[in-house]
Amino acid sequence: MPEEARARVTTTTARSHSDTRTRVGAPQADASGFRAVRGLTETLAAPLSAEDQVVQPMTDASPTKWHLGHTTWLFEEFILRPQPTRYETPNPAYRFLFNSYYEAVGDRQPRPERGMLTRPSQGEVAEFRSIVDEAMVGLLSSGRVSADTICLLELGLHHEQQHQELMLMDAKNLLSRNVLRPAYQTHDPERSPDPAHSTSSSRDVAATQVGWIPHNGGKSEIGHTAQGFCYDNESPAHPVWNEPFELADRLVTNDDWLEFISDGGYERPELWLSDGWNLINEQGWRSPLYWTDDDGIQGIFTLEGHRGINPHEPVVHVSYHEADAFARWKGARLPTESEWELVARSRWSPPARGAEPNLHPSAAGAIGSDPEQFCGEVWQWTSSAYLPYPGFVAAPGAVGEYNGKFMVNQHVMRGGACVTPPGHERVTYRNFFPPAARWQFGGLRLARG
Amino acid sequence: MPEEARARVTTTTARSHSDTRTRVGAPQADASGFRAVRGLTETLAAPLSAEDQVVQPMTDASPTKWHLGHTTWLFEEFILRPQPTRYETPNPAYRFLFNSYYEAVGDRQPRPERGMLTRPSQGEVAEFRSIVDEAMVGLLSSGRVSADTICLLELGLHHEQQHQELMLMDAKNLLSRNVLRPAYQTHDPERSPDPAHSTSSSRDVAATQVGWIPHNGGKSEIGHTAQGFCYDNESPAHPVWNEPFELADRLVTNDDWLEFISDGGYERPELWLSDGWNLINEQGWRSPLYWTDDDGIQGIFTLEGHRGINPHEPVVHVSYHEADAFARWKGARLPTESEWELVARSRWSPPARGAEPNLHPSAAGAIGSDPEQFCGEVWQWTSSAYLPYPGFVAAPGAVGEYNGKFMVNQHVMRGGACVTPPGHERVTYRNFFPPAARWQFGGLRLARG
Amino acid sequence: MPEEARARVTTTTARSHSDTRTRVGAPQADASGFRAVRGLTETLAAPLSAEDQVVQPMTDASPTKWHLGHTTWLFEEFILRPQPTRYETPNPAYRFLFNSYYEAVGDRQPRPERGMLTRPSQGEVAEFRSIVDEAMVGLLSSGRVSADTICLLELGLHHEQQHQELMLMDAKNLLSRNVLRPAYQTHDPERSPDPAHSTSSSRDVAATQVGWIPHNGGKSEIGHTAQGFCYDNESPAHPVWNEPFELADRLVTNDDWLEFISDGGYERPELWLSDGWNLINEQGWRSPLYWTDDDGIQGIFTLEGHRGINPHEPVVHVSYHEADAFARWKGARLPTESEWELVARSRWSPPARGAEPNLHPSAAGAIGSDPEQFCGEVWQWTSSAYLPYPGFVAAPGAVGEYNGKFMVNQHVMRGGACVTPPGHERVTYRNFFPPAARWQFGGLRLARG
Amino acid sequence: MPEEARARVTTTTARSHSDTRTRVGAPQADASGFRAVRGLTETLAAPLSAEDQVVQPMTDASPTKWHLGHTTWLFEEFILRPQPTRYETPNPAYRFLFNSYYEAVGDRQPRPERGMLTRPSQGEVAEFRSIVDEAMVGLLSSGRVSADTICLLELGLHHEQQHQELMLMDAKNLLSRNVLRPAYQTHDPERSPDPAHSTSSSRDVAATQVGWIPHNGGKSEIGHTAQGFCYDNESPAHPVWNEPFELADRLVTNDDWLEFISDGGYERPELWLSDGWNLINEQGWRSPLYWTDDDGIQGIFTLEGHRGINPHEPVVHVSYHEADAFARWKGARLPTESEWELVARSRWSPPARGAEPNLHPSAAGAIGSDPEQFCGEVWQWTSSAYLPYPGFVAAPGAVGEYNGKFMVNQHVMRGGACVTPPGHERVTYRNFFPPAARWQFGGLRLARG
Repeated sequence: MPEEARARVTTTTARSHSDTRTRVGAPQADASGFRAVRGLTETLAAPLSAEDQVVQPMTDASPTKWHLGHTTWLFEEFILRPQPTRYETPNPAYRFLFNSYYEAVGDRQPRPERGMLTRPSQGEVAEFRSIVDEAMVGLLSSGRVSADTICLLELGLHHEQQHQELMLMDAKNLLSRNVLRPAYQTHDPERSPDPAHSTSSSRDVAATQVGWIPHNGGKSEIGHTAQGFCYDNESPAHPVWNEPFELADRLVTNDDWLEFISDGGYERPELWLSDGWNLINEQGWRSPLYWTDDDGIQGIFTLEGHRGINPHEPVVHVSYHEADAFARWKGARLPTESEWELVARSRWSPPARGAEPNLHPSAAGAIGSDPEQFCGEVWQWTSSAYLPYPGFVAAPGAVGEYNGKFMVNQHVMRGGACVTPPGHERVTYRNFFPPAARWQFGGLRLARG
Repeated sequence: MPEEARARVTTTTARSHSDTRTRVGAPQADASGFRAVRGLTETLAAPLSAEDQVVQPMTDASPTKWHLGHTTWLFEEFILRPQPTRYETPNPAYRFLFNSYYEAVGDRQPRPERGMLTRPSQGEVAEFRSIVDEAMVGLLSSGRVSADTICLLELGLHHEQQHQELMLMDAKNLLSRNVLRPAYQTHDPERSPDPAHSTSSSRDVAATQVGWIPHNGGKSEIGHTAQGFCYDNESPAHPVWNEPFELADRLVTNDDWLEFISDGGYERPELWLSDGWNLINEQGWRSPLYWTDDDGIQGIFTLEGHRGINPHEPVVHVSYHEADAFARWKGARLPTESEWELVARSRWSPPARGAEPNLHPSAAGAIGSDPEQFCGEVWQWTSSAYLPYPGFVAAPGAVGEYNGKFMVNQHVMRGGACVTPPGHERVTYRNFFPPAARWQFGGLRLARG
Repeated sequence: MPEEARARVTTTTARSHSDTRTRVGAPQADASGFRAVRGLTETLAAPLSAEDQVVQPMTDASPTKWHLGHTTWLFEEFILRPQPTRYETPNPAYRFLFNSYYEAVGDRQPRPERGMLTRPSQGEVAEFRSIVDEAMVGLLSSGRVSADTICLLELGLHHEQQHQELMLMDAKNLLSRNVLRPAYQTHDPERSPDPAHSTSSSRDVAATQVGWIPHNGGKSEIGHTAQGFCYDNESPAHPVWNEPFELADRLVTNDDWLEFISDGGYERPELWLSDGWNLINEQGWRSPLYWTDDDGIQGIFTLEGHRGINPHEPVVHVSYHEADAFARWKGARLPTESEWELVARSRWSPPARGAEPNLHPSAAGAIGSDPEQFCGEVWQWTSSAYLPYPGFVAAPGAVGEYNGKFMVNQHVMRGGACVTPPGHERVTYRNFFPPAARWQFGGLRLARG
Repeated sequence: MPEEARARVTTTTARSHSDTRTRVGAPQADASGFRAVRGLTETLAAPLSAEDQVVQPMTDASPTKWHLGHTTWLFEEFILRPQPTRYETPNPAYRFLFNSYYEAVGDRQPRPERGMLTRPSQGEVAEFRSIVDEAMVGLLSSGRVSADTICLLELGLHHEQQHQELMLMDAKNLLSRNVLRPAYQTHDPERSPDPAHSTSSSRDVAATQVGWIPHNGGKSEIGHTAQGFCYDNESPAHPVWNEPFELADRLVTNDDWLEFISDGGYERPELWLSDGWNLINEQGWRSPLYWTDDDGIQGIFTLEGHRGINPHEPVVHVSYHEADAFARWKGARLPTESEWELVARSRWSPPARGAEPNLHPSAAGAIGSDPEQFCGEVWQWTSSAYLPYPGFVAAPGAVGEYNGKFMVNQHVMRGGACVTPPGHERVTYRNFFPPAARWQFGGLRLARG
């Protein structure tokens, strides 16, 4: 089946979940790949009403509609606008409304005001997408596409994949604020027929025991060297020196976290960084985000609705500060990003997955999931601050604003989450969030040595 | 034509503006009046999309959908719920979601979070309205309605009229924050065929000259004594003593305001109360809210879209502080609420109006408008703090929270605005806002003596 | 004994408290009166160390040193500077540093930064006072003093008396923030040999019973008409109309307040204005300011140190919101300012007092105090917003900024407190504070009818 | 001359500046060293009045008096209190008042309220110091001092040296907020007879040219291995891998910075990290802290008063964001902390210095200063986030709170500043500040490669 056809199928039949799990790679930088990625975005927006799509739940998050417009604007701004062939924007104001943070492009809608955009309407944004899609497919099918354009296309597709994940994160945050506890989508047992949600399988027992993967340390090289796309922040590849260390062979679970709570984890200042101790007390945090307590009965809010806590699932939606305190409590520590990358590189290979992201992480041992959970469950906090690799230079112009200008006061997360689109993950991938953030699907894996 | 039929007509054909102007009175406390008021609410919401209706532009304002639900909840809570006959709410959570501020009723959605309510959906709220409407009409048509219920019905209808105005105020605020400057509804020349928007009629000249209406002062009585509904805060009627004074025979206009600006009104501290001077400098206010400046060209954002400033229209969307500074600049002052009421009582009679509110105030002398502009154009700031009348006692229970508990740090506004539903205005009506508020349709009339 | 000599004695021997209680009038507008007022200021500052005098405990309060400089600057700015005779300021920067809020005078040290003024030193400010005092006394003794200057002198002396009270209020606030609970001055039993601090005298019983002073209402006149100084805000005298009413014949006591607390006063929303309910919950207020709770044992912090609560003393340091809620709980209300003035005028006459303020209010019936406690114990909240009297016009120039520009979002307090300098009180005196303020010596008297 | 005698001399004659410059080492962990350090603290406080010493200029800074008490408390808490011999504190409340952030010790005065401590008085704090000094010297002279105590003594002395620097930083901040621009101490030409303040010596020309010190990179070891004291955060020593690089042989100067400003450095978003761009625009920063502009004439506020900008002095009081933007503008970058340490280790040796810190950095080439300016002028921002070294473990108990709990959202600064007490500096020393901080004496050195 040609690529283009496959993409179309993906787009149109995704909801049927008839997709057998296959090895899904990075998006192809051609018309077919373009259509596949664009289609998945719309598939993911579909369960949300126009009302859901317009509201901004907090400054960090954006409305779905804004994501839909912004990802489209990126192709318009960086690929279509510079083409010699005539492209006309449906509305010049979109350049203002859908620019995220590119100073080189000009002024923009202030981030905290993205939720004011009841206009353009959902339909107008859909039309914007459609116009840009048509122009893009026309261009890509024209045979007159420069190598530079292909690079930008590739960037735009990976960018849109990131926003697919953000759409799910942001929608979850919005829905969680509603006392009605609405589900983004109800759980589809056909899609996740694994024992993740049971609590009594024989696999569960194993899941609670941690094994340790040793590494000898010494000089190694990290960063992106393989073929294929990477973001600028993954390069240049460069040597690092590590002392011998070990990484846990699974993620920290809800069960582990319940034990941390029971042992007074949130009440013992000696476990916390000073900023973290202030943070949890100011915010009143006593459990991960989205954990609920209905008169003493603990539960969890997920994209599939509200339900009980499965002790074997990875803990998710914890801040760096919570992850760090947990590790200290456990007598361990968080891995550095080089430690994580070195081990992941040797242990992980892309699993067969469906074309769509999952909505919640699975317990270790779930069918079809990576047994050591390196990628595809939760982003894993590392102890590494997000800084440029030696020799890093940002690209000139607006595209250079993509990653480099955020390299301060953030920590690197590694691995990719359930909500990360299949094929978007890489062992060299450097995600990053401020230490207090927890609306992303973030958890942790322990290190020692 | 029986009342009920008229109400139905109003609701279904309002948009055609075929309504000939008639004298519109306060809502009737029966099934027919109920239907008329409820129908107008929906008519006013209709030009707004589901997206427009869900977003909260600022803490002071509420989403349209919330207004739709809240006004409905009031009938459910205070009338249907206590009935011995079985009434079942479509969703018990609505009691939490749509309670505004009634402590006696229980916890509620925090006001700054009303914009998070993407669920219940627009359709579900419509269904809520429909269920309550049916139950209410059933009850009102049953012949078994107590006098207490009639009182609550009357309160509920006037309450809903207030929210009709709030819906327009809040929607205007939302739309104004959008660089696309979308109109709530485009101007209908058939509906306002007056010369308000021209700038060269012979009436305009007259409009710029102020006459003064004298009053001898002395002992008088203010407050509600006539038949018909009033809010608790308008009573008891009581004597007041005034010195002789004069009131202007028209409102302050945009032209007046432009002169104030030209004369450095916003730059001269001696004109301002201390709080006001701090306020305008912190906020950077240099003109009324919704005035725009596109590279030096002044304009105004209205519910009918963005357009030029008509110098003869009343100035609108000014704070108490601005009104007070303007009066001081003019060598005059704001009237007290008793001064306003005494004059308005003798000069104003309800004009013939259509059943729907207007979307913008008209210049003095516009056809069909009150020549002295006491009611129906803009709320007029008074120098009176909003305090209880001598002998005022709040009603027991939740209903007693309606007005009394806001009697501090607010100023009384009198008159009613274009967006006030016809029939809702009264010369004894006491509206109130904090001195810094300006999203309401607020202007001023001068006093002296 | 001539006035001048008396003033000197006051200044130099005040601490011995040999002063027999005499009828103390308003300050004399001459050199002798000037010296007396200026001397008292320094007497009141004396118990505070240089360190105490420089720190600003909160934005509302000012450091003692700033009060010392500011009161001096007022004479320099408005009297000495305009004189044709040569006066040279010791430092031109003082005009910037010690201007409080006079826009007409120019820029000034921002209010929240008054505590940064470690320079000029305490000694330099003392020298500033001395230079200005010498120049003022020279001028006043010269026989060439215009009537205008006398007016400004009078204003300056009353202004300085206000700051004497502010110094005590602000120092109390500062000292209260220190876990060491330092006293401004230890209690002098010779000076207050009354039974106020005992709890078992026969007078105490009487003190707990409230009598009611009736008034027929009708037309009366309020405002300042008598001879002698008043602030601009007390005029013009004007007629008011009141319904019949009654005022309590004593202040609300600590005992009353303890009962209010026991009855859940701070937990019942129906007793509170909406703003007040939000305020006490945001701030966690559950008792008056300066009440302490050491493991369940209630106490009170006073200028004379920390001690137990005397149930018969007037309650003090409550906000308008607390006073209003108390009155509602009691089935009564706060008086209006005209009610207060009408009754006080007919009942109160200035008592014999020492030349210095007291540091804490006394129980009703204390020797030498007003039996009905109208003046000299605590400022009494009225239900009247602070607004201009009919016909009020602010003076031109900087002096006009004295009172008028604060006439919004404040409530009038009447009576004068223990810390008000003797002779400063008047039955027409209009003090004012925002409804949330409670660092002033504020209490309440009930009204009904 | 025995150590003890020398220390006494230092303390009592420091102000005479007769000290010939000698090689000053780390404080001795004995009675003599104790006296020397304690004496210098008092010497540094001496130019400040009691008023200067009590005020807190901002939350980040502390009053001098608090520093005096806190450094004393540390010896009391960690050394005297645990001794079996009887030690009685002069006031148990000091444990609350002078604890900085040790959770293990208990509650404490909130940091933003340190400026409220007008009591204990300056004299009482001096007495506290004297009591603790006597007890400490008695203990240290007793011959019964455990090795553990010696370790704590050493920590306490280095801790006090840090606070000596903080006292100068904080006092500078306080004095800078005063329009009188008071000097902490006027410049003593005998003490700094170098050409730093001239602008026309032949050395100046050289100073403006940057040389580059190359390093081959590869595997090296950083961290503290030498004999002598270090903080826990400097260990364990461990291998690192670096690519080849070069470091500038001098600091960035005011002249360089003026060029950066002229070239629009503060107006070009492409030069800044995103957080930095927001920061400078929110704060309105357009030059380093303490630079002044009097109607277009640039100047600088120093501890020695206000004066013109010497172009050859190192720029000081810039944030990480400014340093980072400058480096990007220059086509260079900030060094990592390992790069800095590797070069400094091979180039720097402790210069001969007087026993007291300098009050302002000197131009390169100033007599007696390090020609390459590695230590003793300004702390130098590195691109390294402040994180634990591999294998770092915090000490158990309160002492373990010293450094480790701050390891997030800060950047490492290296080198030591003019205001760092002589002998306190080390090439392995890791100072740290948040990226927005600039009240510390922070500048930068460029790196490339």
